[in-house]
Amino acid sequence: MIDYLDTAGIVLTEQEKENIEIADFGLGQLEEQGLELITYINNEHYCAKELVLFSNQTCPEHKHPPVLGSEGKTETFRCRWGKVWLYVEGEPTPSIKATVPQGSEAHYTVYHEIELKAGDQYTIPPNTLHWFQAAENGAIVSEFSTTSRDEYDIFTDPRIKRVPETNG
Amino acid sequence: MIDYLDTAGIVLTEQEKENIEIADFGLGQLEEQGLELITYINNEHYCAKELVLFSNQTCPEHKHPPVLGSEGKTETFRCRWGKVWLYVEGEPTPSIKATVPQGSEAHYTVYHEIELKAGDQYTIPPNTLHWFQAAENGAIVSEFSTTSRDEYDIFTDPRIKRVPETNG
Repeated sequence: MIDYLDTAGIVLTEQEKENIEIADFGLGQLEEQGLELITYINNEHYCAKELVLFSNQTCPEHKHPPVLGSEGKTETFRCRWGKVWLYVEGEPTPSIKATVPQGSEAHYTVYHEIELKAGDQYTIPPNTLHWFQAAENGAIVSEFSTTSRDEYDIFTDPRIKRVPETNG
Repeated sequence: MIDYLDTAGIVLTEQEKENIEIADFGLGQLEEQGLELITYINNEHYCAKELVLFSNQTCPEHKHPPVLGSEGKTETFRCRWGKVWLYVEGEPTPSIKATVPQGSEAHYTVYHEIELKAGDQYTIPPNTLHWFQAAENGAIVSEFSTTSRDEYDIFTDPRIKRVPETNG
């Protein structure tokens, strides 16, 4: 992950490097379905993270439901480096560019494709199913959002546990 | 500004490049007191901007007061490239590193110094006076915040008008 960030010119402090979150979503196949992230700030109003996706790595389908009296998390994804394909609810794109992770096809249900290259961004409304996959060279995505409460995320795949697997 | 962003590896779309905001705060001395910025997203919940400061350029002292029933803007400044000195309310730092813009000394009143190098960040509470100045090589700062309503900002210098001067 550090190599990816270096390539993109994104600087972390030593303490942030130690707090990088490696999310394998309890599936045990990090390279296919997983996400690497660093949270810069997450307060009662807003949140900013840097997401790193390795080559063809996929963040599994999920949504952010209304919680604690708020309407659910709104997320703006801004691609900083590389390329990522984002899928959201809506008209399915006929021939998508991503490859659905083998053996998990039943747990990917939305297929409206948005391609994000460096400089492109897209805002996902609350309570909207979405998943995303990096292209062959991987991707770095800045996420700007309302407060992040990952423990309330709803994943389509019932096997998924949204807990940090390891640090480092 | 584009050159600074290129150096730091920050990619903008062509449309974003056309919408770069050059703020001289109505003072007519952009190189001394001014700010270049691009707003990525500003919705009813959160805002994300990239700020560029030229060599020794200063963003004048101001605060974000409570407006429209909210407590005022909270801002997280994350230095991405270069170095910036941020001054906020609190114990004055004995010998500050920035140089107060000549002729405007009366309008700079807070002197608690926070030095931000690439990877460092600081969150400014609502309604708190602050100003900041880039070091000799300039700086790029990501701003994550609550909703931005620049027209309500209160500047210490009564000559200041917070309006975009030009685009480009």
